Amino acid sequence: MRLLRVGAPGRETPALLDETGRIRDLRGVIDDLDAAFLADDGLSRLSSIAVDELPVLDRTGLRVGPPLHPGKIVCIGLNYRDHAAETGAPLPAEPVVFLKAPDTVVGPDDPVLIPRGSTKTDWEVELAVVIGRPARYLADTEAALACVAGYAIANDVSEREFQLERGGQWDKGKSCETFNPFGPLLVTADEVPDPQDLRLRLWVNGTPRQDGSTKDMVFPVAEIVRYLSHFMVLHPGDVINTGTPAGVALGQPDPKPYLTAGDVVEVEIDGLGRQRQVVAQA
Amino acid sequence: MRLLRVGAPGRETPALLDETGRIRDLRGVIDDLDAAFLADDGLSRLSSIAVDELPVLDRTGLRVGPPLHPGKIVCIGLNYRDHAAETGAPLPAEPVVFLKAPDTVVGPDDPVLIPRGSTKTDWEVELAVVIGRPARYLADTEAALACVAGYAIANDVSEREFQLERGGQWDKGKSCETFNPFGPLLVTADEVPDPQDLRLRLWVNGTPRQDGSTKDMVFPVAEIVRYLSHFMVLHPGDVINTGTPAGVALGQPDPKPYLTAGDVVEVEIDGLGRQRQVVAQA
Repeated sequence: MRLLRVGAPGRETPALLDETGRIRDLRGVIDDLDAAFLADDGLSRLSSIAVDELPVLDRTGLRVGPPLHPGKIVCIGLNYRDHAAETGAPLPAEPVVFLKAPDTVVGPDDPVLIPRGSTKTDWEVELAVVIGRPARYLADTEAALACVAGYAIANDVSEREFQLERGGQWDKGKSCETFNPFGPLLVTADEVPDPQDLRLRLWVNGTPRQDGSTKDMVFPVAEIVRYLSHFMVLHPGDVINTGTPAGVALGQPDPKPYLTAGDVVEVEIDGLGRQRQVVAQA
Repeated sequence: MRLLRVGAPGRETPALLDETGRIRDLRGVIDDLDAAFLADDGLSRLSSIAVDELPVLDRTGLRVGPPLHPGKIVCIGLNYRDHAAETGAPLPAEPVVFLKAPDTVVGPDDPVLIPRGSTKTDWEVELAVVIGRPARYLADTEAALACVAGYAIANDVSEREFQLERGGQWDKGKSCETFNPFGPLLVTADEVPDPQDLRLRLWVNGTPRQDGSTKDMVFPVAEIVRYLSHFMVLHPGDVINTGTPAGVALGQPDPKPYLTAGDVVEVEIDGLGRQRQVVAQA
């Protein structure tokens, strides 16, 4: 299934993208796409629904929001070989883990705000993994994949000065307002036969900036989920941003093409849809 | 007011500690102590209540839970001069910021679990600041204090090997299951006339381990809130753990007295109550 949430910010309602590309209304069928729905095995129940009988929504002017509001967002740093190289960092021996505030999540086509005082706001296309079952001290990668509800696109927007030059931990440059465009779709795991064979692309003002494949992840999705489960409990509705391939502004020669107001960022992953953000000043 | 939540984990109900030390039932008066309650100016409405008319709860066997479930938890590292010194770190030029998963929060007297494979589980008594109004690009520390709903005790439990020796960011050692005992009380800001004059203490098996004062913070509460508001939006229900004074296990001579199963940790801050955790193996 390809699930989404539509409507005004904070008042989104659940919907489904059918095989012909029409958006079907899930109001009255489920309350929302959220942690409670996932924890209650809502995806299994929903999979037997008669899609053709659901009302079709008019797409005109319809805003697409994030497909769910994450409980927590766990991020994996330097998880593509070419991205580690472009930032001058050694390849990590085990996953680099940090957190991003879940209130940074916005819809896939909502504006991204450059923080006041920022001159180094950067982009990062990432495969986001949505957790569907509790993950705690998992024994192996097979058990880990069984905890994955589905996949989505995340743009892990990052302020490099805040992240790297202002003392301490990366988190300072990762949790600014609007810094996690998410969606449009939550695509259930059964429709993503190989999460390690997805092309990820990102454009700024039409110029291709990132073009990678999840084949090049240092730690694949299943290993990330298994590994994390030994350091924290992953709950239904939690999201993992699994790292970005090469091509971020930080990795370019000077003067680096950091984002400025008016820029348009487009983000795409095979089968997961496409995002488009207009950049504005906070 | 001194507010708390009582009952079984996940089913806590709101309550109030009156001036004589009795716990009064707030069921039927408010739905819960949570982000929505704070955002809706619930504290102002609650302040005019006739406390004497509230039912008194029987304390026998009554579990105290966390006073609220945080939206996000922002932590300030190395924020006491003596603690920075004991860890061998230079005094930070600006606040060191990291995040902690909000699902680590447990009640003040709930067990703390040592992660599997851990040999360096450590304690940190901290003054927790509860946000009551949105904080975004605040102009000064006066505006920052106006965003503070109240204060609580947090034990920012930390696994030092995961935090410092496993690659990457501190977050890996901060978000293990049960790693944020929180409460018992949310004491409203009007009852804490000077948050920079509070004694913080922590004992392990009765041995005093930490005995500091918020006077020794490098960055005081108001400056932390002002500063953070320029890097992220703080929302009602968010919590800031403001750092720990000297005396953690990491700062002791070898062999460092890290926690083991059966240890009892007690934590106290002037006017904010007392915690007691029995340590167990995950």
